[in-house]
Amino acid sequence: MNAHIITIGDEILIGQINDTNSMWLAFELVKLGISIDTIITIHDKKEDIINTLTVSLKKVDIVIMTGGLGPTNDDITKSTLAEYFNSKLSFSNDIYNNVLSFLKKRGVKTNDLNKLQAMVPDKALVLPNMQGTAPGLLFEQNNKICISLPGVSSEMKGIMNEFGFNAIKSRFDLPFNFYHTTLITGIGESQLAERIADWENTLPEEISIAYLPTPGILRLRLGMTGKDRIFVENKVNAEIDKLKLLIPELIFGENEQTLENIISELLIDKNATVSTAESCTGGSIAKTFTSVAGSSKWFSGSVVAYSNDIKNRFLNVPMTIIEEHGAVSQQVVELMAMGGRKQLKTDYCIATSGIAGPDGGTDDKPVGTVWIAIAGPDFVIAKCFKFGKEREINIKRTTIASLNMLRKALL
Amino acid sequence: MNAHIITIGDEILIGQINDTNSMWLAFELVKLGISIDTIITIHDKKEDIINTLTVSLKKVDIVIMTGGLGPTNDDITKSTLAEYFNSKLSFSNDIYNNVLSFLKKRGVKTNDLNKLQAMVPDKALVLPNMQGTAPGLLFEQNNKICISLPGVSSEMKGIMNEFGFNAIKSRFDLPFNFYHTTLITGIGESQLAERIADWENTLPEEISIAYLPTPGILRLRLGMTGKDRIFVENKVNAEIDKLKLLIPELIFGENEQTLENIISELLIDKNATVSTAESCTGGSIAKTFTSVAGSSKWFSGSVVAYSNDIKNRFLNVPMTIIEEHGAVSQQVVELMAMGGRKQLKTDYCIATSGIAGPDGGTDDKPVGTVWIAIAGPDFVIAKCFKFGKEREINIKRTTIASLNMLRKALL
Repeated sequence: MNAHIITIGDEILIGQINDTNSMWLAFELVKLGISIDTIITIHDKKEDIINTLTVSLKKVDIVIMTGGLGPTNDDITKSTLAEYFNSKLSFSNDIYNNVLSFLKKRGVKTNDLNKLQAMVPDKALVLPNMQGTAPGLLFEQNNKICISLPGVSSEMKGIMNEFGFNAIKSRFDLPFNFYHTTLITGIGESQLAERIADWENTLPEEISIAYLPTPGILRLRLGMTGKDRIFVENKVNAEIDKLKLLIPELIFGENEQTLENIISELLIDKNATVSTAESCTGGSIAKTFTSVAGSSKWFSGSVVAYSNDIKNRFLNVPMTIIEEHGAVSQQVVELMAMGGRKQLKTDYCIATSGIAGPDGGTDDKPVGTVWIAIAGPDFVIAKCFKFGKEREINIKRTTIASLNMLRKALL
Repeated sequence: MNAHIITIGDEILIGQINDTNSMWLAFELVKLGISIDTIITIHDKKEDIINTLTVSLKKVDIVIMTGGLGPTNDDITKSTLAEYFNSKLSFSNDIYNNVLSFLKKRGVKTNDLNKLQAMVPDKALVLPNMQGTAPGLLFEQNNKICISLPGVSSEMKGIMNEFGFNAIKSRFDLPFNFYHTTLITGIGESQLAERIADWENTLPEEISIAYLPTPGILRLRLGMTGKDRIFVENKVNAEIDKLKLLIPELIFGENEQTLENIISELLIDKNATVSTAESCTGGSIAKTFTSVAGSSKWFSGSVVAYSNDIKNRFLNVPMTIIEEHGAVSQQVVELMAMGGRKQLKTDYCIATSGIAGPDGGTDDKPVGTVWIAIAGPDFVIAKCFKFGKEREINIKRTTIASLNMLRKALL
């Protein structure tokens, strides 16, 4: 079963916002055994919507469309779809009441635009929106379906999770798509490819492979489609087992795991706590930890010590050491980790100090030079990394390398 | 002049990574006066690449393609394009030397896969890659062009900035596209639409308008295309001037400005410094500040006080006050801001305390309740916000609201 995702929005075509909806939809649809042939973004124009939909409904059975359902004048998807599917717009009391009760809960006054949101095409099945005011719409024609969703991410997700995916499952007999991703850190794409070339060359033909590099993390994805779920899973898992024996030290997890979630589990298991003492990462590690729901169980806080004065007063790093070795040095980062651990009263502490760029580099310590230390109950370890020239990427890679060092220390 | 952007990559179609390259390319091409008709993502399959390219080259003059140029087996774009444009692949010594010197600088060993990257189609103009190993390729046919770029973001951007955009400018006579975005915070989409309805209804027909909502920030974009740059800019700017008189208190900036960059300028002007004392935002505000290059001039550090013990010991908030009013209260957040300002020795301090969710809510203080305080040289202000149920969005909205409160305090 194949699908197209169509995103409607000038704002994406002029590069003003990113289309994150399609990524989420693709991920969820693939889990249902649906292959996405194409993701396409088009203008908020009637002609473009109609042409694209016509082509898509010829090629695939399922079309998911996002955007252009809002209350403002630039939103034309609903009227265009009504016309395309020979449907009339009529006022729905049920939907208007939903809109009113949603706005009331938020303490927002209603206006005439909200009435427009209760106008729905009479041939569409309405998929209620519990997070907002514009409902989703499902049209059926010749055993094919088109689902239209609002562009606001939380609303689109809510409608699909509560109604959309069930509507698809109940209408189609879906095959089984299996994907497994191995999460790897500490090696580049070419180097990994060389190291696992023999394994890759003997992969069964029906298993696809893809290298997915992002700053600091390389994801290696195997995929296979089939009718028998157990057979497909076993076939892919057998290859993953071989890979794990080949590069055990480079693998930190799989699929949707994240370093922060793995660390969360390890710390909860050990009944231990962590803190951070961050210079060049400027709070990025703390922010990553606190993105985990329930992190207050094992994360108590951080000192972001951007200035040397704060390294000294809050983390007890002597000014003489900073002056002698520089803030970006093994000595300072180890003292930051030990000082942070003691002052913040945690079992472990991560410290970072580096030159994120674009300025501040020297011949000795060019932009991208970063020291990371981990202090634990009976140890302190430090490591120097040489990253690149881009500030944002350096902060990201330092954050990932820090989390991976802590993960290894916890094992 | 119109263009299509084609992204090649299974990883996007299974929802594993986001297509951020297209956003960047669209933004830069629009600045050159090129309209993007469509952004399309397709599989790493020869047939799909050829079919999509055939359709695109019928419709538009410029096709930009990213992905599938890497050294591994799943990368087939180069050989497919060579075939499409009747070109032979031949080994280029120049490019091989580029690859060798790039890898040497990084201290990486070369392997046979790197030799493959020096094979180029003889009819293509090579666009050198200074950030990586796979060069860009430009094909010309019937006065139309197709540029193929690697999918790694920094390499793609480097090739376009150094060679690609100039190659386009030298080949086409480009019109003038003007877009202006007004940055708005503190109001929802429907409410804003109602408030500015009269202004919107009298906009000249040739000016397009779009509402672009993101969590915490609403962007209102006006656009116009024409031959005369001054005429177009004046026409759009006259409408923006009217808008500014209508909603002065809701506008915080324009175009690519960010709250953190505006704050950076305000603090540098005042020769003042800021710190943060963060509970529910967990380092997110500090991370936002330190994303600004040169922020060490005005940002010295933060205390991420996730636990009450750290609020007490590092920020001097008495435990009795926390017990009496709860950590999420006006009293505590004001004391955090004042304590942070004093302890971190800065002119201003932002403090946050709230219930980000998904747990921890009560009837009195449901998930989404957030207190924000700003302490300055002679004042402390606090405000309570009621956000929603999603942890990530609550942290994001708290960060934006905090920055906006600081911006207003600095004005």
